[in-house]
Amino acid sequence: MSEIIDRNNNPGRVSDAMTRRMPAYYRRLLELENLGFLVISSKELARRMGLTDSQIRHDFNAFGGFGRRGRGYNVELLRKAIGDILDINREHNLIIIGIGNMGKALAQYKGFSEHSFKLMALFDANSELVGKRFGGARVYAINGLAKYLQKNPTDIAVICTPAAGAQELVEPLAAGGVKGIWNFAAVDLQAPDSILVNNVHLTDSLMMLAFRMHEKQVLEEDKSWISE
Amino acid sequence: MSEIIDRNNNPGRVSDAMTRRMPAYYRRLLELENLGFLVISSKELARRMGLTDSQIRHDFNAFGGFGRRGRGYNVELLRKAIGDILDINREHNLIIIGIGNMGKALAQYKGFSEHSFKLMALFDANSELVGKRFGGARVYAINGLAKYLQKNPTDIAVICTPAAGAQELVEPLAAGGVKGIWNFAAVDLQAPDSILVNNVHLTDSLMMLAFRMHEKQVLEEDKSWISE
Repeated sequence: MSEIIDRNNNPGRVSDAMTRRMPAYYRRLLELENLGFLVISSKELARRMGLTDSQIRHDFNAFGGFGRRGRGYNVELLRKAIGDILDINREHNLIIIGIGNMGKALAQYKGFSEHSFKLMALFDANSELVGKRFGGARVYAINGLAKYLQKNPTDIAVICTPAAGAQELVEPLAAGGVKGIWNFAAVDLQAPDSILVNNVHLTDSLMMLAFRMHEKQVLEEDKSWISE
Repeated sequence: MSEIIDRNNNPGRVSDAMTRRMPAYYRRLLELENLGFLVISSKELARRMGLTDSQIRHDFNAFGGFGRRGRGYNVELLRKAIGDILDINREHNLIIIGIGNMGKALAQYKGFSEHSFKLMALFDANSELVGKRFGGARVYAINGLAKYLQKNPTDIAVICTPAAGAQELVEPLAAGGVKGIWNFAAVDLQAPDSILVNNVHLTDSLMMLAFRMHEKQVLEEDKSWISE
């Protein structure tokens, strides 16, 4: 659903598959911790997450030993370790550019503050929006972006503009020291090495669902055919 | 970023990793086709997509032979084959429940109609929204949902309500014959076997980006240390 293009293709980087599982692990372990779990077996965690027991153990071996054979994993320690890897306690300063429906929805999305992403400012070309507040952050005119970045260190820019307006934002963002772009505009962005881009394709997620629905239907038809 | 929980855990299903790549392949091949490419090598496609040559060839071998060694792949045929697997030409009827910012943003998202997802109706509890139109579809009162589903076969329901209101929608949707839920509410849904749920976690995508940014920084610091 989202691709992160790392043009340096650095060796030593964690695989995409593992990286994708880590936020899910973090989220699930935090839920379990809040429910009062002290210890959990790899088998039980696998069951709850729809993964295999061996996948869980393989991944957690890579993180360093947090379990004892037959004893399961210490939920809190494991959660904290994954949090460290994800650098979850580091605050990331976020801005959103493009305050249409998607921009407004993201500005108000509670999940971000819960995960140390701090919404600092919003930008738009529409002067009628300037001065308004969404999700606690103020809208500034887009032509103030470069000046804002000079004065306010910003880690991540979320782009929610129409496709046509997105690519031209990359250069000022990179020049302003932004290190990551979370891109919801309907065009994949080209970016210099200094800045990582995560192009979000919402349709991919929906297409995956439709594919799974279709596959499920076909497999169930096969089953009923076999049992006749 | 999104998990599809298939409680039947059917054998024969395509791996998640492969499934995740397919919409990206489809999208990229369609772009290339529109740019006038007739043939593309696995190496060139890999380069453009940030994948490895062998990954591409492994995946496309699974789809059946569309290439000739040394000749590359016929772009249009391959794109159509993947489209068939994704069942991309089948129209899926969609409804959206919860017409806040996210619901409105999704209603107007052009990518859906481009991929044969047809937005049929919107539902909300707020009577002031009833009768309004977004993305060409009309808002109905949520208490009309069951009756609507009786008369209008619906494939996928997109849930964009607050977390508290989401779980109670599953039963009427399942009873109404809906086969898939695309869930943006901030709570994972429990569902019967008849209905697949894709729980979207936007924070996962953002956390992946932050992790990659952090990793890149660490690897670059390592490199500069080594070269001193």
